[in-house]
Amino acid sequence: LAKRLEGIAPTIFSRMSALAISTGSVNLGQGFPDVDGPPDVIAAAVAALHEGRNQYAPGLGVPELRHAVARHQQRHYGIELDPDTEVVVTTGATEGVAAALLGLVDPGDEVVVLEPYYDSYVAMMQMAGAVRRPVTLRAPDFRLDADELRAAVTPRTRFVLLNSPHNPTGTVLTRAELEAVAAIAVEHDLVVITDEVYEHLVFDVHEHVPIATLPGMRERTLTLSSAGKSYSFTGWKVGWATGPAALVGALLAAKQWLTFTSGSPLQPAIAHALDHEPDFPRELARDLQGRRDLLCAGLGKAGLTPRIPEGTYFAATDVAPLGWDDGLEFCLALPDRAGVVAVPAQVFYDDPDAPGAGRHLVRWAFCKDSAVIEDGVRRLQEAD
Amino acid sequence: LAKRLEGIAPTIFSRMSALAISTGSVNLGQGFPDVDGPPDVIAAAVAALHEGRNQYAPGLGVPELRHAVARHQQRHYGIELDPDTEVVVTTGATEGVAAALLGLVDPGDEVVVLEPYYDSYVAMMQMAGAVRRPVTLRAPDFRLDADELRAAVTPRTRFVLLNSPHNPTGTVLTRAELEAVAAIAVEHDLVVITDEVYEHLVFDVHEHVPIATLPGMRERTLTLSSAGKSYSFTGWKVGWATGPAALVGALLAAKQWLTFTSGSPLQPAIAHALDHEPDFPRELARDLQGRRDLLCAGLGKAGLTPRIPEGTYFAATDVAPLGWDDGLEFCLALPDRAGVVAVPAQVFYDDPDAPGAGRHLVRWAFCKDSAVIEDGVRRLQEAD
Ligand SMILES: CSCCC(=O)C(=O)O
Ligand SMILES: CSCCC(=O)C(=O)O
Repeated sequence: LAKRLEGIAPTIFSRMSALAISTGSVNLGQGFPDVDGPPDVIAAAVAALHEGRNQYAPGLGVPELRHAVARHQQRHYGIELDPDTEVVVTTGATEGVAAALLGLVDPGDEVVVLEPYYDSYVAMMQMAGAVRRPVTLRAPDFRLDADELRAAVTPRTRFVLLNSPHNPTGTVLTRAELEAVAAIAVEHDLVVITDEVYEHLVFDVHEHVPIATLPGMRERTLTLSSAGKSYSFTGWKVGWATGPAALVGALLAAKQWLTFTSGSPLQPAIAHALDHEPDFPRELARDLQGRRDLLCAGLGKAGLTPRIPEGTYFAATDVAPLGWDDGLEFCLALPDRAGVVAVPAQVFYDDPDAPGAGRHLVRWAFCKDSAVIEDGVRRLQEAD
Repeated sequence: LAKRLEGIAPTIFSRMSALAISTGSVNLGQGFPDVDGPPDVIAAAVAALHEGRNQYAPGLGVPELRHAVARHQQRHYGIELDPDTEVVVTTGATEGVAAALLGLVDPGDEVVVLEPYYDSYVAMMQMAGAVRRPVTLRAPDFRLDADELRAAVTPRTRFVLLNSPHNPTGTVLTRAELEAVAAIAVEHDLVVITDEVYEHLVFDVHEHVPIATLPGMRERTLTLSSAGKSYSFTGWKVGWATGPAALVGALLAAKQWLTFTSGSPLQPAIAHALDHEPDFPRELARDLQGRRDLLCAGLGKAGLTPRIPEGTYFAATDVAPLGWDDGLEFCLALPDRAGVVAVPAQVFYDDPDAPGAGRHLVRWAFCKDSAVIEDGVRRLQEAD
């Protein structure tokens, strides 16, 4: 094993999904829906397969998807993009993160990153030789403290790696919080890499504000997103990066060697989704909100009252009130105790024992069928 | 742009395919067929889409594909593999190369590699901080000189990056050549990473010998392959890595952060291809052999006599006899002169001016329709 990977554990999602399968548990761990996206998007993929869209797509992605992504950004956020230089298709946002970090970050560069963080961020930062400067969204309210963010910036800081709506906390950064990030980015001339895969999955009055839309930010923001979460096709791994040509070009410079291209017949189908199913993500969010409420109520009855998530499809709960002082131990025991799998959030922290950090935090996914959620929370309530 | 990517030009394949499109030329450059693979494999992908194979595949790949790959290796080569620890699905062999190098190679490690080399090898070696030790397959016969290979090994050498059938020369390494590689690998305790994506595309009496089948090699060989070339679905980007659990595990350790997984509905379709269309690749090779002969005869008439390729779907020709002393200049002028695009092989050498190296070499793809090849060579013959 190369040194760049030393000390990095296998992704928790693979581990917990394997545990769900081996124990036959209800899987409220890894975030994937158990109902697929729109049938006409599947039909579009079938048509692409039959119409011979089966050889290499261009490295940038098929033109119709790049154009559809540009239209999507225009329609939702008023962001104008040149589909030939400011949009690149990636193998999900995971490849977007990997290629952005490998394409932009030099060893020793400091990257300010929201903690808890998605596990691939940490692994790829280490692989890129980045120095991680976490800013913790502290329990129980998981808000961004602008003073902490400012304090994390040093003369060696070059990037902010943002994620909103935020996995695993369910926080949607407010306009005010994002303005604080933007002010710091502009002041210190930082590039913001922002993972917005849950952009459409926001609830109640919460609104997703792409940081690229704030003054002074368009030219310094590389935005990553994907169709997986918005259209419930997580396995297709069709994502995209958008932003100024120089940033998109740096990502492409790395990405072309990671996979070259991927998913030729799936790319036109996602173009179809963006153009012809523009309301699907909003309807999905409305529906998810009900399932969120179902999960949260059920968790509450099991003694695991969560902060109500503002976005994403995850809720985080503190297991300490049930007498567990370690979320990983809780999660490893849970299949036996209750036949349920969840994800220990502690693996997403540098120091899970810091104030407001996540030693006791456990993440629950509500992108599952209502019946699955009901079954899961009933099992939790009945566990001893 | 990060320093790890400095000096690396965009992939020549994207560049030349873009040139083919912008000039309306016959594209004998990038290697992808213009006829798709078996209809029942497309039908299997359609079925997977309809049957809900649309969420994340496991990071290792879907079980039926890993089992099908293991059966394929058993059937063709007598190699026994544990599908749960010795097979991992990748986003084409390109991701296999990237993840193998990032997962195994430390900065300063020397990697002996056949030159001319596929461009992603060089880029990923640089990204991994590898020191490249090329061993040139020299024109005009493009054979491997075991003494040169031996001379390239130093105490810092840890890996051999092999590719047979070899792109762009069309050489298929003989058993004797591979035995020489194996002897050196065993003697110096080297790990061999071998890209065998053209494993089934061999012609005449030539035979593909997987180096993993040679004595002492199974435990030190990481083999990369894919369905793209064997089944004419290059755009699906379904590949795999096989070998001992430690090597496959190191590759997976990197791969899980590059894409996590990809192509969920395409993976079961490729499992179907391996199990139910076992003869397709051989028939494709037989058919390709005719197109090879068509291309080579036509190139000969145009004054560009190639060495007859033993495998792959590429032929390399020297353009010096036509008065061109630079293959890149030849290729850049060719759309105007003849309405044809080819790939300059010089970009695949450290020093294209070394003896037997490729300043004048141009690569032509024959995975195209016979009519396209005929059109292409007629244009070449008529060019002034
Ligand atoms: C790439 S695996 C996980 C899916 C996901 O985004 C999550 O569970 O957080
Ligand atoms: C990944 S692009 C190129 C296809 C190919 O293998 C080649 O043309 O050599």
